[in-house]
Amino acid sequence: MDFFFKPRGIALIGATANPRKGGHAILKNLLKGFPGGIYPVNPRYNEILGVQCLPSVASVPDPVDMAIVFIPAAQVPETIEDCAKRGIKGIIIESGGFAETGPEGKALQARIDAIRVRHGLRIWGPNCMGLVDAKNKFVFSFASPTIWDEGLLPGDVSLIVQSGMLAGGFLTDTMTHGTMGVSKVCSIGNKSDVGECDLLEVLLNDPETKAVGLYLESIPDGQRFFRLCRAGEKPVVLLKGGVSPQGAQAAMSHTASMAGDGRVVRGAMAQAGVVQARDFKQMMDLCRALSMAPSLPQGATGRTAILTYSGGAGIMTSDFLSLFGLSVAELSPETRQILGTVYPDWMPVNNPVDLWPAVEKNGAEKAYQTALSAVMADPGVDAVIMHIYAGGFALITENAKLAQTAREAGKPLLVWLLGGRDAARAMHLELQDLGIPVFRELYRTTECLSAVFRWHRSRNERGGETEAPSSLPAPAREALAGREGVLDEHDSKGFLAAVGIPVIEEYVAAGPEEAVAFAGRVGYPVVVKGLLPGEVHKTERGLVRLHLATPEAVNDAVLAVREVVGPEGRVLVQRQAKGAIELICGFFRDPQFGPAVMLGLGGVFAEALEDSAFAVAPLDRTEALALIGRLRGWKILNGLRGAPPLDREALADILVALSRAGAAFDGLSEVDINPLVVENGKPVAVDATVILKDAGK
Amino acid sequence: MDFFFKPRGIALIGATANPRKGGHAILKNLLKGFPGGIYPVNPRYNEILGVQCLPSVASVPDPVDMAIVFIPAAQVPETIEDCAKRGIKGIIIESGGFAETGPEGKALQARIDAIRVRHGLRIWGPNCMGLVDAKNKFVFSFASPTIWDEGLLPGDVSLIVQSGMLAGGFLTDTMTHGTMGVSKVCSIGNKSDVGECDLLEVLLNDPETKAVGLYLESIPDGQRFFRLCRAGEKPVVLLKGGVSPQGAQAAMSHTASMAGDGRVVRGAMAQAGVVQARDFKQMMDLCRALSMAPSLPQGATGRTAILTYSGGAGIMTSDFLSLFGLSVAELSPETRQILGTVYPDWMPVNNPVDLWPAVEKNGAEKAYQTALSAVMADPGVDAVIMHIYAGGFALITENAKLAQTAREAGKPLLVWLLGGRDAARAMHLELQDLGIPVFRELYRTTECLSAVFRWHRSRNERGGETEAPSSLPAPAREALAGREGVLDEHDSKGFLAAVGIPVIEEYVAAGPEEAVAFAGRVGYPVVVKGLLPGEVHKTERGLVRLHLATPEAVNDAVLAVREVVGPEGRVLVQRQAKGAIELICGFFRDPQFGPAVMLGLGGVFAEALEDSAFAVAPLDRTEALALIGRLRGWKILNGLRGAPPLDREALADILVALSRAGAAFDGLSEVDINPLVVENGKPVAVDATVILKDAGK
Repeated sequence: MDFFFKPRGIALIGATANPRKGGHAILKNLLKGFPGGIYPVNPRYNEILGVQCLPSVASVPDPVDMAIVFIPAAQVPETIEDCAKRGIKGIIIESGGFAETGPEGKALQARIDAIRVRHGLRIWGPNCMGLVDAKNKFVFSFASPTIWDEGLLPGDVSLIVQSGMLAGGFLTDTMTHGTMGVSKVCSIGNKSDVGECDLLEVLLNDPETKAVGLYLESIPDGQRFFRLCRAGEKPVVLLKGGVSPQGAQAAMSHTASMAGDGRVVRGAMAQAGVVQARDFKQMMDLCRALSMAPSLPQGATGRTAILTYSGGAGIMTSDFLSLFGLSVAELSPETRQILGTVYPDWMPVNNPVDLWPAVEKNGAEKAYQTALSAVMADPGVDAVIMHIYAGGFALITENAKLAQTAREAGKPLLVWLLGGRDAARAMHLELQDLGIPVFRELYRTTECLSAVFRWHRSRNERGGETEAPSSLPAPAREALAGREGVLDEHDSKGFLAAVGIPVIEEYVAAGPEEAVAFAGRVGYPVVVKGLLPGEVHKTERGLVRLHLATPEAVNDAVLAVREVVGPEGRVLVQRQAKGAIELICGFFRDPQFGPAVMLGLGGVFAEALEDSAFAVAPLDRTEALALIGRLRGWKILNGLRGAPPLDREALADILVALSRAGAAFDGLSEVDINPLVVENGKPVAVDATVILKDAGK
Repeated sequence: MDFFFKPRGIALIGATANPRKGGHAILKNLLKGFPGGIYPVNPRYNEILGVQCLPSVASVPDPVDMAIVFIPAAQVPETIEDCAKRGIKGIIIESGGFAETGPEGKALQARIDAIRVRHGLRIWGPNCMGLVDAKNKFVFSFASPTIWDEGLLPGDVSLIVQSGMLAGGFLTDTMTHGTMGVSKVCSIGNKSDVGECDLLEVLLNDPETKAVGLYLESIPDGQRFFRLCRAGEKPVVLLKGGVSPQGAQAAMSHTASMAGDGRVVRGAMAQAGVVQARDFKQMMDLCRALSMAPSLPQGATGRTAILTYSGGAGIMTSDFLSLFGLSVAELSPETRQILGTVYPDWMPVNNPVDLWPAVEKNGAEKAYQTALSAVMADPGVDAVIMHIYAGGFALITENAKLAQTAREAGKPLLVWLLGGRDAARAMHLELQDLGIPVFRELYRTTECLSAVFRWHRSRNERGGETEAPSSLPAPAREALAGREGVLDEHDSKGFLAAVGIPVIEEYVAAGPEEAVAFAGRVGYPVVVKGLLPGEVHKTERGLVRLHLATPEAVNDAVLAVREVVGPEGRVLVQRQAKGAIELICGFFRDPQFGPAVMLGLGGVFAEALEDSAFAVAPLDRTEALALIGRLRGWKILNGLRGAPPLDREALADILVALSRAGAAFDGLSEVDINPLVVENGKPVAVDATVILKDAGK
C-alpha cells in the first residue's frame, strides 16, 4: 500500500483549469504540499497552474506509482486500463457515479474491479475523497484548498471514514476549527477494493499514528477487522452507523435471534478492546484523549483528583466520575497538608480541590502548580481533571510547567476549558501542543477520561492469541457420529458433556418403571420430557412435565408423554434443578464475525431485561470472564435475596469449552443452552439444542 | 422585585478607580448600558470614570431603588443599615466572605439577614455575580467589561445560576462565542434572601423570557419550586448538581429508603414538566431549542423527516431518533412524488432524504427548498432535522426562505451544522436570527428535538391544579381513631380499604377453627401471619406462613404463629394472592418536596432493576398514569410470558387515593404497600404498613 501513502510521482487524471471543478482543487492541493512528481493529465491543456499538462497517461514520465482519477464515471474503465499499461499500481478513484447510483453504476464498478484483478492493481474508492496526510502535507483529495489557509493541523490521530460527503465536511469542520490535529485521513467511499481492514493494518503499523478512529456503515470482513483490532497495540475508536433495532432476523434458535440489533458488533468490539463512539465529534474527542494519554500502570483504576476554580463544577465532575465508573480519589494526608499551605485557614481541604480561595490568596500560578504537583505525586491518584478559564478571572497559569508536572508523573491530565472565543482557542492550542487534551464540555471531559481507563482495562482483559483447535476431542466426535440436523435434547447434552460442560442428571427411560427407579436414585422432584426428532418447542407441545414429586406423578407423566411422542420419540427423565438464576448460553455463526458465543440472563429476566453479551470464538478464560462482566444484571449474578453468587470461573469454563468446540468443528451450526441453571453457584445445562449443518449442504 | 430588574437609580457602594477591582468593572458595566441614575459611593474619590462620586449612601439623590454592594464583608452590615435609612429596598451584595467561608462568615451573613428582616429589604447574594440583562443592556455585575466587546447577544433564554464563579465563567464563555443569546442571567450566590423561587416567579412572568435554565445545588423550598414549574407555561430546564448516590439515608420503610439518590427530585421535576439537563452547555442547548420551538399541535409525536447531504449522517440521525424515542417519519406518496422531481432517476426517495444527488442535479437552493416545503407540508411529519454545511460544497441555500417555510408550517426545524470555523459561525448566527436553532453535534441536535416533544407531552400529562383535600373521608378517620405510631398489617389495610384501595381478603382469627373456616370460604391456599404491635419485619421473625393448602396446614400454622406473638399479638389469615407481577407503592413526606408517593417494581425485580418512580402528592389521574409510565420495566407491566397486562387505570386509582389521603392528613407519616400484587391485571394490597406521627411529637 506504500504507493498510496508514499508515492514518488502522481498522475492526476481529470486535471482541469476550471477552478470550480474538483480536478482543479486536487491539483492545487498537490502543488501546495506534495514534493514528488505531479503530472496532470488532460489532452485539452498544455499547462494548468504553471505545471505542464500531459495528453495521456502513457506520456507520464518516471517515477510514477499512483494515479488520482477524477473524470466522468463512464470513462474510468478505459483510464484504469491505461494506468495498468503505464505500470501504475495504485489508483484512487474519487469520481462518483458507481455502485452508489443503482444497477448501471454497480455494473460499471464491477467492470473496474475485473480490470483491477486482471492487472493486479489496488483501487481506492470510487466515490471517495481520497487521502489527507496532515503531517506530510499530502492532500490527495478534491477537498476545498481553503483548508490550507484555515489550518491543516498535524496530530497523532488517523481516521478511516466510509461516507464520502461526510469525510469531506467533517474533516474540514474539524481541521478549520483548528483544535484537533490529524495524521492520515482516509475516505474510502464505495470500498470496491481497498477497505477499512487494509487501511487499518497500515495505520496500526504507522509510526505517525497513535490512535485510529473509524466511521463505518458496514464491516464486511468482521473476522479480519476483529483480529487486527485485538492484536493491535493502538487505541481504535469505532463509530458504527446503522444500529437501529431493525436488523434482527427471525431465527430458529434463541441465541441467533438475540444476535441482531448490533449486539454482536458491540460484543466483538469490546472483546477486541475497541472503544465504541456515539457521534462524530465525540469520536474525535475520544481519539484525541486516547492518543494523548500516557500508558497507565497495571493497578490504575481511575481514582481522579479534580482541580477546579468552581465548587459547582467540582460537584458536577464528581457526579460524572460516578456515572462513568471512575471515582473521586481519596487524598493522602501528605497531599492534604501540601494543599493546606495554599488554602486560607477557614477552607477545609477536600477532593474536588476547590482552588478559588487559594487563587485569591496566592494567585493562580502558585495555587494551581502547588495543587497539581501534590495530587500528581499522590499514590492514591490515577488521573487529574483540571478546570481552567481562559481570559480573565486572574486565572493565569504557567501551562508548560503544569504539563511537565503531568508528564513526569505519567498520569493523565485532562482539562475542561471555558473562556472567551479567541482566548479559549489560543489556550486550547497551547495546552494541546504541550500534550494536554482539552475539552469544552465537562461531561465529555469525564467521558473521555473514562475511555482512557476502559481502554487500559481492555488491554488487561485481552485474551492471548487464541488459536482455534484443529478438531473436536474424540468423545465429542463420537457423540456426534452419525447425527445430522437438529439433535434432540438428550443427544445435545451428550455432546455438551463430551466437551466438558456440566449437564443435569438424566436418563432415557424405556417405561414408567425405569423412570421411577431413576427418580428414586436422583431424588424428587424430577422432570419428564418427551423428545421428538427435530422438535425444539417441547413446552408448547405439552412435552415437559415439571415438579413431579411422587412415583405416581412420574408414572402418569411418562405415560402421557409417551402417548404424544409415539414410537418415533423417546422419554427423558431428569433431576429438577434448583436455582434462582437462569442463564442462556449459546454458540452460532455470525455472518460478519464468524464463530461466536452468546451469554444472557434467562428465565423471567430474559424478557424483562434483554440482557445479553456476545463474543467471538474461541475465547480464553480471561475473555470469558470479561464476557460475563459485560452483562448488566450483575446484581442478579451476585446472588439475589441471599442466594449464593454465580461461580464465574465455572461459567467461564463452560464458555471456553463451548467456544472452542464451535471454532474447532465447522459442522456445528448452532448450540442453544436454555436454561443454564445456576445451582448453588454452579451452572448446569438443563435443556439444550445442538444444530448440525445439514449433510446435504 | 422590580427594583432589581427595573431600577430608576442605582447606588454603587464600593466603586473604585482601580481598574483591576470589581468595583471598577461594575461601574464601567453600568455606564455602558444602564440609562438610569448611576451613583458611585466612595469617600476616597470625587469622581470615577467621569461620574461624580458620593461620600456616603445618605448623599445619593432621588430616585434610587437599588444598591450594588462590593466592599469587604466586614463593612457590609453597616452599609445595609445605611441603605435602609436612605430608603433603598433592593440590595445586590456581590462581595464574598460570608457563609461560604466558614462559621465567622456564617455569623456575618446572619447579621445581614437580621437587618434585612428588620427593615423589610430584599437582599440578592451575597457572594454572587448579580444580574446581566442582555436585552436591556443592564450589567449589574463585576463580570469583565470585555463581554461588551465580545458580544452581549440578546436572546430569549433566562438563567438562574447558583454557583458564583461558574455563573461568570460560563456566561462569558457562552456569550463571547456569540452563538447563544440570553435575556436575564441571575447569579444568586449564597441565597441569603432572594432565591431561585423568587427569581423563577419573575422570569416565568417576564415577557422577555421564553425559557428558563437553572443550575442549582440545592432547592430548599422544593414545594414552591414544584408548584411554580408545574403552573408555568414556559419551558424550564434544570441542571441539578450533586446527584451522586451518597445521599440515601437509612429509613424504616422501603419507600423512604428508595427515595434517596435524587430520585424524588427527578420524579417531581418530571411531574412538573421540567426538563432535566446533564451538563452546562447541554442545558443551554436544551433551553435554546425549547425557547425557539413553535407550539405543537395536540397529536404531534415526533415523526421526523431528515434532510441531509450525507447518507452516513442520515443513518446516524435515524439511529439517534430511535434512541431518543422519536421516529423516522413515513413520507406520504405526495411528498415522495415532489421529492422525485428534484432527484435523479436512479435514486429512490426515502426518509432520511439524501439530497446530495438532488443538489448535484438542481443545485442546493432548489433541492433544499423543494424538499423542505414537501416534508413540512406532509401531515405525517411532525418535525424536520436538516443537515447543512457552511462554506463550500456548493451547499448555498437561501436561509430566509427555508425559515419562512418552517415558520408557516409551525413545525420545529432544527439544523445540524458543519463548516469552517468562521463560515459556520456566520451561518449559525444567520439561522438563529431567523428563528432556527443550530447545533454542532448530531446527537445533541436529536436530543434537543426530543426535549421539545417531551416538554410538549409533559404539558399534556400535567394534572389540573390538584388541591389537597382538607380532611380524610369519614371511614378513614374512623379507621385511624385512637391509633398511633406503627399500625399493624390488618389495621394498616383497614385504613387503605377506607380510602378506597383494594386489599386482599383477610380475617383476624381467634383460633385455628376460625382460620380454617375462613380458608374454606375464600379458597386454598391461604397465608397465616402473626401480627405484633410495631413489628415491621414479620418474615424475618418467622411470622409469615405461605402456601397453606390444607386445613391441617392452616391449623398448624395458626398454633405456631400464636406461640410467637403471644397474647399481645393477633393472628391473621388471608387468601394467597396469585400474580406474577409484584409492585411496591408508598407514601412519605420528603424533606424537600413534602407529601410524595412512590411506585416501584417489587418482588425479585425490585433488587435486580431498582425501578422506582416518584411524584409529589396529591396526584390526579393524568399524573398517576404518567407516574406509572415512568417505570422502566414496562415490559413486565405489560404482562410477561402471556400474563395479563396491568390495569393501569386501576393502579392509577390506588395512587390517586393514597396521594390524596396523605396530602389530606398531616398525621400520616408513611405508608408502605409491599407487595401490591397484580392479580389478573388488578392490583391488590397484600401487605401494608401505615405509620402515624407519634402522638407526642
